[in-house]
Amino acid sequence: MRAVAVVGAGKTRFGAFPDRDLRSLAVEAGEKALRDAHLEPRQIESFYLGNFSGPAFVGQNHLAPYVSTALGIVDVPSTRIEAACASSGSALFHAWSEVAAGIYDLVMVVGVEKMTSQTTGRVSEILAEAGDSSGEMRAGNTFASLFAMIARRHMHDFGTKKEHLASVAVKNHANGALNPDAHMRKVITLEQALNGKPIADPLNIYDCSLISDGAAAVILAPLERAREFTEKPVRILGIAQASDYVALDQKEDITTFPAVRRSAERAYKMAGVGPREIQFAELHDCFTIAEIIATEDLGFTARGTGGPYAFSGCTARSGERPINASGGLKSKGHPVGATGAAQICDVVQQIRGQAGERQLARHSLGLAENLGGSGATCVVTVLGAA
Amino acid sequence: MRAVAVVGAGKTRFGAFPDRDLRSLAVEAGEKALRDAHLEPRQIESFYLGNFSGPAFVGQNHLAPYVSTALGIVDVPSTRIEAACASSGSALFHAWSEVAAGIYDLVMVVGVEKMTSQTTGRVSEILAEAGDSSGEMRAGNTFASLFAMIARRHMHDFGTKKEHLASVAVKNHANGALNPDAHMRKVITLEQALNGKPIADPLNIYDCSLISDGAAAVILAPLERAREFTEKPVRILGIAQASDYVALDQKEDITTFPAVRRSAERAYKMAGVGPREIQFAELHDCFTIAEIIATEDLGFTARGTGGPYAFSGCTARSGERPINASGGLKSKGHPVGATGAAQICDVVQQIRGQAGERQLARHSLGLAENLGGSGATCVVTVLGAA
Repeated sequence: MRAVAVVGAGKTRFGAFPDRDLRSLAVEAGEKALRDAHLEPRQIESFYLGNFSGPAFVGQNHLAPYVSTALGIVDVPSTRIEAACASSGSALFHAWSEVAAGIYDLVMVVGVEKMTSQTTGRVSEILAEAGDSSGEMRAGNTFASLFAMIARRHMHDFGTKKEHLASVAVKNHANGALNPDAHMRKVITLEQALNGKPIADPLNIYDCSLISDGAAAVILAPLERAREFTEKPVRILGIAQASDYVALDQKEDITTFPAVRRSAERAYKMAGVGPREIQFAELHDCFTIAEIIATEDLGFTARGTGGPYAFSGCTARSGERPINASGGLKSKGHPVGATGAAQICDVVQQIRGQAGERQLARHSLGLAENLGGSGATCVVTVLGAA
Repeated sequence: MRAVAVVGAGKTRFGAFPDRDLRSLAVEAGEKALRDAHLEPRQIESFYLGNFSGPAFVGQNHLAPYVSTALGIVDVPSTRIEAACASSGSALFHAWSEVAAGIYDLVMVVGVEKMTSQTTGRVSEILAEAGDSSGEMRAGNTFASLFAMIARRHMHDFGTKKEHLASVAVKNHANGALNPDAHMRKVITLEQALNGKPIADPLNIYDCSLISDGAAAVILAPLERAREFTEKPVRILGIAQASDYVALDQKEDITTFPAVRRSAERAYKMAGVGPREIQFAELHDCFTIAEIIATEDLGFTARGTGGPYAFSGCTARSGERPINASGGLKSKGHPVGATGAAQICDVVQQIRGQAGERQLARHSLGLAENLGGSGATCVVTVLGAA
């Protein structure tokens, strides 16, 4: 397999944009990535679109050629991948496979979601279609209630406290406040985070990520050609996608995600590094409990200790291993299909030293973890300076 | 790149099955393919699900792990691809890439759609999301009206007649009547085909494919290992996916599909054969005019002559190059996401000599053409005896 680099990255701002449609967001991100890599659309040999639910949110399906042709990318394979909230992470994995295997040299991934449209009243219902709609959702669950059960069980088994959850929200809001592209640039206190409007106990509004519009794009190339396109290539050192059961009641233990553990193991092995060496990470904090469990499943902290690990400040920008310096899904925003690609853009920005006020001290080896649903899909990527 | 073979294939019957859900159909097809290849689920290294609109039809998204875990395939990459009516053709293309590139040895593709559910009243609307919903569909078009415009233009430019269209329906119904798995086993006369209930002039009900439930699955392996799994491997000699504009008004000429021509050129080149050598084909007859245009775009007959070519009997089971011996989308049925994989199953069955009453005299080199939307995606596959 060939070594692969990210040679272009671009994002829209995340937010609620009533005047923007899905395609214009995707095209903006794609064009930024093309400019970043000094590429013309016609040079792209394969195109992937990561999108969760364009048909339900905006009434448009068959989204890959719908977006790629608008970017001026015509004729080549143009493929939409849907893997719930891991849609563009999965798209990246498949794009990486193609370049690593030598099938193509220049492959583009765009992730996009337009959630704040006229269907906003149905957002919870549309998101619930990423869970087991015939079982757990028919029983009245939403994603918030599923993750509330996960949080409750983590509290029961390990003594995790609401303060631990709240500290994740406080940290990610502090980070997002420094991110000019974030959806909600609002610093909050622990007091505020503990007293948000209840959503599904023990989760309140501050434990939940945002409903956002946005898009992100990355372009991959063989490492050996990367400097044709950028002065600052970022190498994909390891990447893996794993899967698991969709319904919580099919899992042996709901306080850990096997798909995260397995994709992390494989990505670490490919990269030849372990969790201790990872300097910073963008994790899938769809809910605060998800970030806490991710730090355990990724091996950053021992099983059951993710709560105190977050609360101690280890994951703050100034901590030993900063998590979600971008603000995460919590504050940067979570346009579902865009999130995986946006995490890669954020890690790339850090590695390049272009993260502005959020720039971390140690930024040469980063990780992104993109979770789909309540853990049925996970993509873990390890990136480093090339 | 390694040579790749189909080592397992399996299908459900196509039809309207009020008592079956999407997952049970997908699992039935997948289990048949596993048995056909003498494989256990745990041996599959990568899984693809081709599905167009499960969320809209049955309220379930994140469909790849939802199906793969039910088959006993857990942990490995499990990826849903959506490319309108070419969803499982595109899934096959990506599965082939992985095996050809040496990433995995055993990759499974399942295509599925459950269309005759409680949302049946919305079927035209859901299908229209594969076109340009913000433009042509908002203007009141359905897929039938788009293909009616295509047919009208083909008639204007080339003198194609309603009798030519009707002859495609008569042939495909005659073929489907011999297929025990077909949705509609009903022989029709040219008189009947010409006088069906109007849908979008010049297309009547007999020019339109069926709204069906069903699933199909194939398993790929490197050719060099194929005989470990089957006595009758079928080689993928050539395969390509191409893309084009979604909206008809963006196309220079609506009587030809560039994505079909380009994917065919590449698949022929890879296979080292030309259209003349193809002995039989399964083509994407979502509407009768689509089969006529496909025979032109694939080079079976000259531009503009697809109508007389069909009418002359050349494409009948006894003709020089039988088309849709399975009955095609017209009579076998068209569960959108299953169609691409089902075409491969049908070609494989012919090449293996297992097509029963439909078995063709010359059956060692076949082609499948799977079209998405009004031509924005196409996957062409050339298969031959290994």
